[in-house]
Amino acid sequence: MFHKVLIANRGEIALRIHRACREMGIHTVAVHSTADANAMHVRLADESVCIGPPASKDSYLNMAAILTAATITGADAIHPGVGFLSENADFANMVREHGMAFIGPDPEHLRSMGDKVTAKQTMKDLGVPVVPGSDGAVTDDDEAWAIAERIGYPVLVKAAAGGGGRGMKVAYKREEMHDALNMARTEARNAFGHDAVYLEKYLGHPRHIEVQVVGDNHGNAVHLGERDCSLQRRHQKLLEEGPSPALTDEQRTWIGQRAVDAVRGMGYRSVGTFEFLFEDGEFYFIEMNTRLQVEHPVTEAITGVDLVREQIRVAAGLPLGFGQDDVEIRGHAIECRINAEDPRTFAPSPGQVTNFHAPSGLAVRVDSGLYSGYRIPPFYDSLVAKLIVSGTTRAECLRRLNRALEEFVIEGISTTIPLHAELIHEPDFVSGNYDIHWLQRYVDAKSG
Amino acid sequence: MFHKVLIANRGEIALRIHRACREMGIHTVAVHSTADANAMHVRLADESVCIGPPASKDSYLNMAAILTAATITGADAIHPGVGFLSENADFANMVREHGMAFIGPDPEHLRSMGDKVTAKQTMKDLGVPVVPGSDGAVTDDDEAWAIAERIGYPVLVKAAAGGGGRGMKVAYKREEMHDALNMARTEARNAFGHDAVYLEKYLGHPRHIEVQVVGDNHGNAVHLGERDCSLQRRHQKLLEEGPSPALTDEQRTWIGQRAVDAVRGMGYRSVGTFEFLFEDGEFYFIEMNTRLQVEHPVTEAITGVDLVREQIRVAAGLPLGFGQDDVEIRGHAIECRINAEDPRTFAPSPGQVTNFHAPSGLAVRVDSGLYSGYRIPPFYDSLVAKLIVSGTTRAECLRRLNRALEEFVIEGISTTIPLHAELIHEPDFVSGNYDIHWLQRYVDAKSG
Repeated sequence: MFHKVLIANRGEIALRIHRACREMGIHTVAVHSTADANAMHVRLADESVCIGPPASKDSYLNMAAILTAATITGADAIHPGVGFLSENADFANMVREHGMAFIGPDPEHLRSMGDKVTAKQTMKDLGVPVVPGSDGAVTDDDEAWAIAERIGYPVLVKAAAGGGGRGMKVAYKREEMHDALNMARTEARNAFGHDAVYLEKYLGHPRHIEVQVVGDNHGNAVHLGERDCSLQRRHQKLLEEGPSPALTDEQRTWIGQRAVDAVRGMGYRSVGTFEFLFEDGEFYFIEMNTRLQVEHPVTEAITGVDLVREQIRVAAGLPLGFGQDDVEIRGHAIECRINAEDPRTFAPSPGQVTNFHAPSGLAVRVDSGLYSGYRIPPFYDSLVAKLIVSGTTRAECLRRLNRALEEFVIEGISTTIPLHAELIHEPDFVSGNYDIHWLQRYVDAKSG
Repeated sequence: MFHKVLIANRGEIALRIHRACREMGIHTVAVHSTADANAMHVRLADESVCIGPPASKDSYLNMAAILTAATITGADAIHPGVGFLSENADFANMVREHGMAFIGPDPEHLRSMGDKVTAKQTMKDLGVPVVPGSDGAVTDDDEAWAIAERIGYPVLVKAAAGGGGRGMKVAYKREEMHDALNMARTEARNAFGHDAVYLEKYLGHPRHIEVQVVGDNHGNAVHLGERDCSLQRRHQKLLEEGPSPALTDEQRTWIGQRAVDAVRGMGYRSVGTFEFLFEDGEFYFIEMNTRLQVEHPVTEAITGVDLVREQIRVAAGLPLGFGQDDVEIRGHAIECRINAEDPRTFAPSPGQVTNFHAPSGLAVRVDSGLYSGYRIPPFYDSLVAKLIVSGTTRAECLRRLNRALEEFVIEGISTTIPLHAELIHEPDFVSGNYDIHWLQRYVDAKSG
């Protein structure tokens, strides 16, 4: 097992990784920008190194500074966390070249799954259901029209290098295809530097269902059920739950098995997530996240598996501590992302937290780096706390979530707590009847 | 189900009950002394009523004030919590006479189990193993000598009305019996107003093992495994764990079945706990607690059952939501009692909490009414927080507990956190090799 792990991240996820290491007897090294010197994970880590000024590109994305920090502290592994360098194949390679372990998958998998066209083709070859569409990049109208005839309108034009909704256009009929292609290409070129775009069948009311997997170096692969992350605003997840209220047990088992087969087929060795759209009983692969996910505690709550521990163990070459038969989905869990944002306008709300008191009690978990007196810097992601609640049933889980939200005290800044407290009483949400467009419609209606 | 429950208690247990009610959609009424107006459960409850001055006898033990508060707020049930009036049969009767439900067992069971001689005889009749001893009160030396010859020295002389170690003397041989009897009787008369004493075999190195049970109005009774509460100082539990490191699965099942049979035999209808001494593979019943216990979260962590919810459901006449076959003990849990005390001298340490930050993350629960700025009044029990940690194994649980204790911030007062942080590294504790005298010896050695 590793002796010392450098955590190349910040915020609640850095704290999460520190906790897992601490519980495994592994020393931790925190790295931080000058803006994060007082962060909780920095205060708790065994050692800490300042790696640069506030701007992420100069600190948390500064590979040379992070590798230097790892070298001088004698770390034997680097955990990249979520975001930042977590899916950067070059970084993973450099970590290995410096004689350290990268706590994540092989660089080839970071690379292949990072390209959406390659990822989709790989999955198709491995028997994972994908959205019907072009086999690769599409350049001219005739080709696009022919594919659209085959898969049917409406058609989505997507940037191959895309993400966060940029470089995406919908053509509802043949006449709109030319403009959609051109506009998506222009946006893609401006946003990502590549103008390759591809086509996909456009789904009108899908849910976002993702399957958690983990594979090791010894040929073992398991899935740990799914999470339903359909509550999104501008492609940002706000609340996640598991199991999905939309799936039958048969669908759950079937898609889990497809994911496990793909993990084996790829020789994938780490935790990972297969993201699907789900509509009218059909799954459509959209992408694979080759890292830990923000919403991993939902799965931890319903399976009892410590995903970060398993990820570290697998990176150290150990076999998985459990098999598929040991995985049992118990009860229900919901995670609310508490962002430092105005709950109406979603404008960021950094600043000093004058009072912080997290809810607790039976089946309530809070992952947060906040504390009373902490000043949230304005330079980073607005996620400041995750509230994870579980229960034997979804209804019980919702009632517990309601009381936990009532107890949550974060003063001095605005947060999304009031929005969550509202959402969980909406009849559509209570009944589990929502798709990936539901939250945006809800928010628009409220602000409209 | 009840519409409104009055919580006749304070501190973390009042908060625990409030949370259970809130999650069941039941309105809550907090009652409080003038010293507790700012307590967290008072702030969270739907309504609150001041029932008297700080002294417990004038507030939390003031039956008339509590019943009046329940009547004027329209409560249809009273939860007595732990301590105070929770095992007072007269109070339970008065609650019923006022047309409200008492969330606890029938008054007859409060009364019969409250008398240790009656309780022991009842259990003996129901097939529960008891400590060999006299069948009732013993008054003269000849009778005591005869019993001692039969059960063997050393012999414990105990006050029938006793508790907390008062009115207890050991006779190691025949010559000591006369003085032991007289001294125990004198102490008992002074402490409890009754001088009845009885004899028991004295156990030299027992563990304290207790079995959690719950029975309903419909003839259902289940046990939920055991807790090991052997870490005690002056008969006060400091740390509890489950399952006990000392029991085999066979012993667990056997004693659980004895407890369930007794619950059925008595017609007991509520949550309850059978306390045993356990030595050399034998169980010896000592008493039954006819109420919720402080350490109930240990059982909640390893069974997934919400004991307070079940207690409320049963009091409302509903059948248990699960059977014995549904109870599965999973993993391990440990509870640390965080007292506002000097961790060396155990002197109470009330006062203002200048900073409070509880640990959280995977499998960590904190039940506490503390918050930053709260002033702990000097009038009550020193228990201010319970830290409950679970894991798939005892070793994992201990490592997680270690990191949670490291993260726990309570400033402005002294607490037992440093003592717990020390204890969990003691080889005897780590190996599970400790009896009910271990902690006292440890503390004495440290202070000596």
